Amino acid sequence: MARRTGRRPGNPDTREAILTAAREAFAERGFEAASIRGIATSAGVDPALVHHYFGTKEQLFKSCMDFPIDPAEMLPQVLAGGPDEIGERLVRFFLRIWDSPAGVAAVALMRSAVTNDWTARLLREFVTTQMVRHVVTRLAVDPAEVPLRASLVASQMAGLAMVRYVLKLEPLASAPPEVVVAAIAPNVQRYATGDLGVAAPAQRE
Amino acid sequence: MARRTGRRPGNPDTREAILTAAREAFAERGFEAASIRGIATSAGVDPALVHHYFGTKEQLFKSCMDFPIDPAEMLPQVLAGGPDEIGERLVRFFLRIWDSPAGVAAVALMRSAVTNDWTARLLREFVTTQMVRHVVTRLAVDPAEVPLRASLVASQMAGLAMVRYVLKLEPLASAPPEVVVAAIAPNVQRYATGDLGVAAPAQRE
Repeated sequence: MARRTGRRPGNPDTREAILTAAREAFAERGFEAASIRGIATSAGVDPALVHHYFGTKEQLFKSCMDFPIDPAEMLPQVLAGGPDEIGERLVRFFLRIWDSPAGVAAVALMRSAVTNDWTARLLREFVTTQMVRHVVTRLAVDPAEVPLRASLVASQMAGLAMVRYVLKLEPLASAPPEVVVAAIAPNVQRYATGDLGVAAPAQRE
Repeated sequence: MARRTGRRPGNPDTREAILTAAREAFAERGFEAASIRGIATSAGVDPALVHHYFGTKEQLFKSCMDFPIDPAEMLPQVLAGGPDEIGERLVRFFLRIWDSPAGVAAVALMRSAVTNDWTARLLREFVTTQMVRHVVTRLAVDPAEVPLRASLVASQMAGLAMVRYVLKLEPLASAPPEVVVAAIAPNVQRYATGDLGVAAPAQRE
């Protein structure tokens, strides 16, 4: 929630113009290819102003997303317990966010991603560049497998969000966190570090 | 796709009035409590006409949903291989539907369920009454556990749909079906028949 906390310098119209240009650039060209210079040109401002308002390109991307959590804070916590605890920690962390007031923003983001192709592109790019790449070096698995593992983990977490918070299918919708963790964490763990049964070289636990 | 195949008798306006009344009734009161008589009254028609147009209450419910598959046809196929194959068969079946032209309708239904609370209610009721209950008696697990198992399976399948077909997160978005099956089927199998690690009495594989 970088946009919602701390100081918000500058003219609100200029800020919005920069965010609009940045969302377009990140969705169209991807995080790597998008440049602060190009975004500044589209928004009709000086690149220095973009840095002044939003900081680095990564911080600008986070501001675009209005993502309910900052992966740079979350991932070290999830990974802190070592590779064997990643499933449990990830599910616990996820429930803590979604069961909190920030869960409302998360549901809104999900709705937007499902109905709006641009938000879907941004979210995809966000997951890939802000989450997957930060995990690659920290798990004892073949780096070549990390994208598949990440998209599998994403499939379980997105589905948990859908069923528990959007569709509200019982009993998962109101199950206590401990039940959800016990049921789902082992499956997430398998996606993160287990044998996926695919041809790509796999390091087994 | 009961609405799209076979004979479509009657006045289209009357059919639509009945479907609208039925969607309201199923979403508000649930499948069990909703009655053909009440739906007919809301639509301003005779109950016999509802039966004439749509058949049984279950058939009417399916017509309301425009669900891309008929669970009454799908479930026997998924369950035919015995309990140990349910994960693999379910993932295969799911991919066959979503990778086919019917996948477009499935994505549309998902979008609608995420953005429209009434569709979410209908979908929830549909999953519970048309899918879960039909599976209860066929799996060698404690019937008390079936709702939790079903909602866990739903979480994985909904998440697969989200990541592969809506968000299109790579590499899962374009992975060959065999890779998807190998990676995901064991997790679905655990939800369907495995040890969930929860306090409720569990029959282990």
